[in-house]
Amino acid sequence: MQPSSFSADRKGRVFTAHLGGKLETRSKIPLNSPEVLRLIYTPGVAEVCRHLKAHPEDGLKYTWLGSTVAVVTNGTAVLSLGNIGPLASLPVMEAKAMLFKELAGLNAVPILIQTREAGTFADTVEQMAPSFGAIMLEDIEAPACFAIERELQKRLTIPVLHADQHATAVVVLAAIMKVASLLQKPHPQLKVLIHGAGPAGLAIARLLHAWGIRELLLCQADGILWPGKKTAEDPIHSDVAAFTNLRQESGRLEELLPGRDVLISTSGDLRLGQNAIRSMARKAVILALSNPQPIVAPQEALTAGCAFALDGTSLNNALAFPGLFKGALEARASHFDEEMLLEAAKAIAQAAPPGQLVPDQLDRKLHRKVARAVAKAVLGSRQEMADCGERLHD
Amino acid sequence: MQPSSFSADRKGRVFTAHLGGKLETRSKIPLNSPEVLRLIYTPGVAEVCRHLKAHPEDGLKYTWLGSTVAVVTNGTAVLSLGNIGPLASLPVMEAKAMLFKELAGLNAVPILIQTREAGTFADTVEQMAPSFGAIMLEDIEAPACFAIERELQKRLTIPVLHADQHATAVVVLAAIMKVASLLQKPHPQLKVLIHGAGPAGLAIARLLHAWGIRELLLCQADGILWPGKKTAEDPIHSDVAAFTNLRQESGRLEELLPGRDVLISTSGDLRLGQNAIRSMARKAVILALSNPQPIVAPQEALTAGCAFALDGTSLNNALAFPGLFKGALEARASHFDEEMLLEAAKAIAQAAPPGQLVPDQLDRKLHRKVARAVAKAVLGSRQEMADCGERLHD
Repeated sequence: MQPSSFSADRKGRVFTAHLGGKLETRSKIPLNSPEVLRLIYTPGVAEVCRHLKAHPEDGLKYTWLGSTVAVVTNGTAVLSLGNIGPLASLPVMEAKAMLFKELAGLNAVPILIQTREAGTFADTVEQMAPSFGAIMLEDIEAPACFAIERELQKRLTIPVLHADQHATAVVVLAAIMKVASLLQKPHPQLKVLIHGAGPAGLAIARLLHAWGIRELLLCQADGILWPGKKTAEDPIHSDVAAFTNLRQESGRLEELLPGRDVLISTSGDLRLGQNAIRSMARKAVILALSNPQPIVAPQEALTAGCAFALDGTSLNNALAFPGLFKGALEARASHFDEEMLLEAAKAIAQAAPPGQLVPDQLDRKLHRKVARAVAKAVLGSRQEMADCGERLHD
Repeated sequence: MQPSSFSADRKGRVFTAHLGGKLETRSKIPLNSPEVLRLIYTPGVAEVCRHLKAHPEDGLKYTWLGSTVAVVTNGTAVLSLGNIGPLASLPVMEAKAMLFKELAGLNAVPILIQTREAGTFADTVEQMAPSFGAIMLEDIEAPACFAIERELQKRLTIPVLHADQHATAVVVLAAIMKVASLLQKPHPQLKVLIHGAGPAGLAIARLLHAWGIRELLLCQADGILWPGKKTAEDPIHSDVAAFTNLRQESGRLEELLPGRDVLISTSGDLRLGQNAIRSMARKAVILALSNPQPIVAPQEALTAGCAFALDGTSLNNALAFPGLFKGALEARASHFDEEMLLEAAKAIAQAAPPGQLVPDQLDRKLHRKVARAVAKAVLGSRQEMADCGERLHD
């Protein structure tokens, strides 16, 4: 499903589907009488304003904040297209907003920011944060994305998550959980190689490590990371290198592949040949996430002997982000933490059909399960979950 | 229709109508198959992103920008409630967003800004301006609102309008046009008194003057404005004083009323008694805009002998802003100018039913007429209007 294989017909349908945008706002109440106008607008609305001034804790009750997410980008790292700027990234942000509504019943608004400068970006989002119940950062280049997420999580009391890092990591972890179970390999023994040390690769490494994967290598175009290696992305790389490649192996991707159980590729800088794939362990697994051009097409990987192979169309962070945000909003979480991510991954792995690594993205039940798992990680107690339960059954 | 007269039942219905907010985002395309997902999301969406990177002029064609307005506030001057802050203002902004969709088919998103500082406010909106096709500023205190609007109009190439100033002025001018016609008075002779020299009062004075009203007085709690008077709001007040009160009259509202044809009140700091009203000219008109508490209830003004009296529930800037923005967006205007405002006022006046000052806000045909008048002011030529016509007939 690579762009080069797009038929003229398919391409035409893509552009037709995007005409006038794919997203709209709607009134939940039909404005069909002066009486409705008096209730929802002036003079009635003043009653609600006065109430919220005195009782800000009712903000989620009488506004759309409790179910509304901002999808925020500056368009500097979109798909594998790179820095295409805010405008050209908008069709992706509209699509993410659609997925929020269609899959988890959440409202979402694309917010495009002009600047590439992390401080100005964070200041801008901080200033407009009262508009939203949660913030999903998307498609922002490294290293700005790290500083922006860190700053916003520090300054705001609503959940903020960089999806390319953490939603991607959750989905990959879910697939690896299922790999371990299907191949009946204890997961601390799984030998995993991550290709691409950008935001996604680094977050995947962190979450796999948090779950207990120990045999973890991380490589990029200039070769493998190791503790002590100096890179342009330090201190982010040093932080992850501290728990990967503990045997100080060296080399490039194809030299590292032999004997590996799992290859996770988040970078579009390489195409993998059949021989390289065949050098992997028996029943190897390739998760080729780079979009729209994966390191290898799943069918080629299977032909070369892999037990499982997926690309970004099925192993997509859309499996995770709708439920992550739904759960966080419903549980009134003030932030995301590692436990919420781990529980989301477990819920996704459990929802995968027999013999498959991940469930269908369009399965609405999946997203409710993820939301419940996330809310449970926040709320813990049975009673709190019961109180929250009604919201999660909507 | 004052808040104090709200029955418990009406109040209950107000809060029920606001539960969970009144606004939502929706996908325009049902996400019901993997094929749809491939067209609107990955990998298809990358085709559209690449196209927009190369052809930014198609941005309005393949995204929702061409029909999407930000409703931006910091909640510092909401209705007559004053500075209630961003959160408590959200029910009003959601209502404005509803009106945009229901009356003019435009999408609208409430954007709440934390700061009261004009520079930071303008910087924030400038940074996120790529997200929207136009910006409506709302309920921002003076004098910050003047600086914010001026800065954004200077920095951005999309239409920016402070509704409390200009949409209100358009609606008042429309009513005055109809007053002149119904009372058969040449409008340069109409004696008009504006009560309240805030953003609305000042903008009304400017637009009435631009249309040709010469007998114009402007007063606030501390009395009338005159050329040369020093006020805290200078240079804004001096600017308007230069063409009002040219005979240097003095006094407070009740001293200025005798013999006046029209009183326009935009301030909630006063209640008007019957004697004061009776001192006005024969067949006087009172437009009591202050929300939710008008200077006098329309029924009382009529009882005291006025020919016409309206309050903010019927003489509301919602008569103007949906069509103003629809017309500006459809004509691809880069800004609003005085001619667009004057043409909008004429269209509203022409749409008023016989014997009434203004049309029904819920009349969708009205908003299409306003939009067409605004677009015509932008485009001018017949051919350009014909090209635009299809969009305006949607």
